[in-house]
Amino acid sequence: MDQVVSQIEHLIESGKWPIGEKLPPEMELMEEFGVSRNTLREAIHALVHAGLLETKQGSGTVVRSSSALEAAFNRHIEKSNLIDTLEVRLALEREAAEMAAKHRTEEALAEIEVCMAQCQAAAKKDDIEEFVIADITFHKAIVKASNNQLLQDLYEYMTDPLYSSIHDIMIMDIPFDYDKEIHHELVRAIREQDVEGARKYVNEYIHAFKERL
Amino acid sequence: MDQVVSQIEHLIESGKWPIGEKLPPEMELMEEFGVSRNTLREAIHALVHAGLLETKQGSGTVVRSSSALEAAFNRHIEKSNLIDTLEVRLALEREAAEMAAKHRTEEALAEIEVCMAQCQAAAKKDDIEEFVIADITFHKAIVKASNNQLLQDLYEYMTDPLYSSIHDIMIMDIPFDYDKEIHHELVRAIREQDVEGARKYVNEYIHAFKERL
Repeated sequence: MDQVVSQIEHLIESGKWPIGEKLPPEMELMEEFGVSRNTLREAIHALVHAGLLETKQGSGTVVRSSSALEAAFNRHIEKSNLIDTLEVRLALEREAAEMAAKHRTEEALAEIEVCMAQCQAAAKKDDIEEFVIADITFHKAIVKASNNQLLQDLYEYMTDPLYSSIHDIMIMDIPFDYDKEIHHELVRAIREQDVEGARKYVNEYIHAFKERL
Repeated sequence: MDQVVSQIEHLIESGKWPIGEKLPPEMELMEEFGVSRNTLREAIHALVHAGLLETKQGSGTVVRSSSALEAAFNRHIEKSNLIDTLEVRLALEREAAEMAAKHRTEEALAEIEVCMAQCQAAAKKDDIEEFVIADITFHKAIVKASNNQLLQDLYEYMTDPLYSSIHDIMIMDIPFDYDKEIHHELVRAIREQDVEGARKYVNEYIHAFKERL
């Protein structure tokens, strides 16, 4: 059974079976992995328990998380204090900004600049929903530019399940008041590889965010 | 089966079945949970796969990790780049020092001071092995004083599997040169709730640690 579990896990973690994907019919899987119906069912049970798969009444088994760590993280965060989670997330964001300033490539910088333009466009239209999504994508692009895969993984695991909370905190400031300067100065610092500057601007918006908590 | 898995998970996460504990005989568990031998074995399989339990040839099944997140984290870290992991760990340490300065209780402060005394005693004896353990315990006490349970959990998950690497990096400086001042100033900052000071001293030793990487 362990081997089938690992094989399925690999298909999921490699993205061959993306989130939402419905599993092929039992017969097909039994043949593919060369196992009995019982062994296959046991393996699927283990993966449902680990949170990687989900059995939906009437629509079969679908992929729920892209990795065992993500699934375990989601369950841990559900049980954690929201403030605790947001604080850890901000700590990762601060570290990421400094590392992005040190290690960003031209490609990563270009991605960050595209995201900043999207934030500005959403702000100009006064579209708060679009802005929240663009802002989250902007911060993810900075974390990606840190070039630390573990930091990036943890940050994503702590962002996606918190989406509705982040959204609620961000829209507390109505009328919508977008301080373009901070995004702009942070991107400038990352572009010029100014680590001190990156830290300074991240600390400013973290301070503003914590005030709202 | 899901219910038995959850029940066993709860026994482990609550500490009723600590790490290293051998599971009671099958018959006893079947009776306790009111399930068949097959269901019990399936549940144990799922937990072995999740990394919470381990089946040892000849000595039965023992508890391996205290939570599903810890187990998933350990496996993720095994596959991660060591530098990436150490960087994230230092980011948590930095955040923890600031939060400890803000939120430390008298009790948490007393624990940190005991740990600092142990570091000093080990350094005085020139006992590097004892010092490494005392130093790790000192930093864990600071993280605990942050009063953020998620931060504490993550820090422990990132410390225990890294013990041998941390040890190897720390003993690179032979003859053993313990800079008492940094520990002392950091504890002073936490005692006096001086957040800026705590950040300053953590940045100093993080810088020194990164130089050695």
